[in-house]
Amino acid sequence: FRIQHRGDVELALRPEFTPTLARMVAAKAASLPQPIKWFATPLHFRAERPQRGRLREHEQWNVDFVGWPAGSDHERTTLALADAEVIGCMIGLFEELGLTSEMIRLRISHRSVVTELLRTLRIPEETMPAAFALLDRREKISRDDFVKQAGEIGLSGEQQEHFTHFSGLKIRGEQPWEGLAGLLPVEEEKLAELHALRQALKKTGLLKWCDFDFGIVRGLAYYTGVVFEAHEVKGRERAVAGGGRYDNLIELFGGPSLPACGFGMGDVVLSLVLQERGLLPAGANLLPEPDVFLVSAGSDDAEDRLITLLAELRRAGIHARRSYRSTRNVGKLLKEAASSRARFALIIEAEGQVTLKNMATGEQQKLADEKVAEALSGHT
Amino acid sequence: FRIQHRGDVELALRPEFTPTLARMVAAKAASLPQPIKWFATPLHFRAERPQRGRLREHEQWNVDFVGWPAGSDHERTTLALADAEVIGCMIGLFEELGLTSEMIRLRISHRSVVTELLRTLRIPEETMPAAFALLDRREKISRDDFVKQAGEIGLSGEQQEHFTHFSGLKIRGEQPWEGLAGLLPVEEEKLAELHALRQALKKTGLLKWCDFDFGIVRGLAYYTGVVFEAHEVKGRERAVAGGGRYDNLIELFGGPSLPACGFGMGDVVLSLVLQERGLLPAGANLLPEPDVFLVSAGSDDAEDRLITLLAELRRAGIHARRSYRSTRNVGKLLKEAASSRARFALIIEAEGQVTLKNMATGEQQKLADEKVAEALSGHT
Repeated sequence: FRIQHRGDVELALRPEFTPTLARMVAAKAASLPQPIKWFATPLHFRAERPQRGRLREHEQWNVDFVGWPAGSDHERTTLALADAEVIGCMIGLFEELGLTSEMIRLRISHRSVVTELLRTLRIPEETMPAAFALLDRREKISRDDFVKQAGEIGLSGEQQEHFTHFSGLKIRGEQPWEGLAGLLPVEEEKLAELHALRQALKKTGLLKWCDFDFGIVRGLAYYTGVVFEAHEVKGRERAVAGGGRYDNLIELFGGPSLPACGFGMGDVVLSLVLQERGLLPAGANLLPEPDVFLVSAGSDDAEDRLITLLAELRRAGIHARRSYRSTRNVGKLLKEAASSRARFALIIEAEGQVTLKNMATGEQQKLADEKVAEALSGHT
Repeated sequence: FRIQHRGDVELALRPEFTPTLARMVAAKAASLPQPIKWFATPLHFRAERPQRGRLREHEQWNVDFVGWPAGSDHERTTLALADAEVIGCMIGLFEELGLTSEMIRLRISHRSVVTELLRTLRIPEETMPAAFALLDRREKISRDDFVKQAGEIGLSGEQQEHFTHFSGLKIRGEQPWEGLAGLLPVEEEKLAELHALRQALKKTGLLKWCDFDFGIVRGLAYYTGVVFEAHEVKGRERAVAGGGRYDNLIELFGGPSLPACGFGMGDVVLSLVLQERGLLPAGANLLPEPDVFLVSAGSDDAEDRLITLLAELRRAGIHARRSYRSTRNVGKLLKEAASSRARFALIIEAEGQVTLKNMATGEQQKLADEKVAEALSGHT
């Protein structure tokens, strides 16, 4: 969104975070210990009509790994290790959410490799941007439209055929490297970064999540090498996450020359995938379960003590709740305690006495008011 | 901020959340169990030049308590209990952050009481909005300017004097109610809601944080009764938090008639106060402390195993780190482990052996690679 502010200042809402991060790093690089690992969940905005998986406002988890010790003699290997750490961080979340490599696939590509592939088809340099743009919308159009649009940007019939073939290549990450390299009519040297990444992913046990897919280019111009996208395996949704290496961006913003790799994962597509897989618990199960539910046994004195105890327990860090219904029927109130899934019910009785009831075992214990916080602290 | 979107649609960035919440509740009230307790930390925007304590973009913690069982015969008391719960939630955060009632004061007021006070001064009804607006900027201008501006809105010399007096009244919450009521030339009945709130705050142990301050009116027009603001005791900063009762707003948006009370607490003033009090830990202390720091004892084989172990430990939910320096000097690497404040160092040695070192006690244990995750899980 662009904003005209008081007629004279032009502002915008950020559509994504990478350039912002690059600017911040460019400004502060000298004073930050490296590598810089940056994690954030900023809000992003899009001036588009909302669609499935794409809203005007969304939260995105951003993970970036910037820099690497200078003078390393294994630069390609170490950069690939950084890529693997970034990818491992993404997959770590998938695993935590109950997603598996049978549900989510990471599609890995490399911009220079795609460029080389297009060159072997003798696609002229001036047509490259159009070919990249076409690759980037490949998932959103039919195969027929893809071939047709390839013709429209000037590819011959034979070029169209090879282009369509390469863009559809999906190679399991675990298949032997020789098999992959053999499929690509590109010099071995041009595949070296991809090879180093494959080795790093193998060492870190991530290769089973990965495919190589040269239809992936990522729309954004700042990516320099490896790019990747996580997709639901059936490919029905937009990418769950996407990222890659952007080794020139920080220098572009006036900072030092620093390699960088990162990804963004939005909340919208991820939650659609979790819903489809039944991995998003229903509302009630997402609610915290109180430690204790307070029930007054009826008298006005008990009601007053309930109010005081409730506040005291909360102050002691105990998650305590009460009913807001006007009933004073203890049976009904205990039912409400059970449906709140509280671990204990605390029944406030006469003369400074309470009964603490374990809702799982039914076990009961009589206590004085002033002993309640202590008794519950031992259980939380 | 107002946004002109594609020439025809006018959009805005929300400056605050209460009307949004009221709209949502109005739309969904029938299907939501009541009371509705709503907690959120949305982003807010202000189309203003940034100032100390007030930025263009800020995050605000919003807490709202909407509704109450119908047909209660103690309505005033129960609404006051809701207010006290909301206020208790705010003070709960202050306590958790190390702030005390010597550092933060909650200034409580009531719009109808202030109106009554103005009426006793015979301020005409048509001057009330200007008097409220002047009260709302009282903290930002000098006492002389306050008196001067009171004259400008049409108050006589005597009215100016009384107005200045009432607006400066700060009464400790703990002082006896009779003392407070006696200071205010307002019928007892008009003070009933304030009295009920005081009783509820007393029962919940919150009164020691509170003052009554009839200079507080809150700028926003939707407040209907009790209003409150939390201020750093020296009053040098803007309000840390503010809120009140808005019993008509949900009905105004087409929903049912539902009482409601809530507050917002921004991140900007709160962090200034925490900084001034030395309660905001330095950057390094806010960083998580890793469970384990992996160190390779030098060989290429150890380096490879480090990469694999690092990924495995992270996958097991253990916070594991490594050095990214090119040195292979174990002493230097152990120093880096110590400065990362890791609880354990894991030294990767030859032939599938590792040494797990407790960084606090210096105690060491030899293990096989495959036993590491298990050994560490017992400690995390």
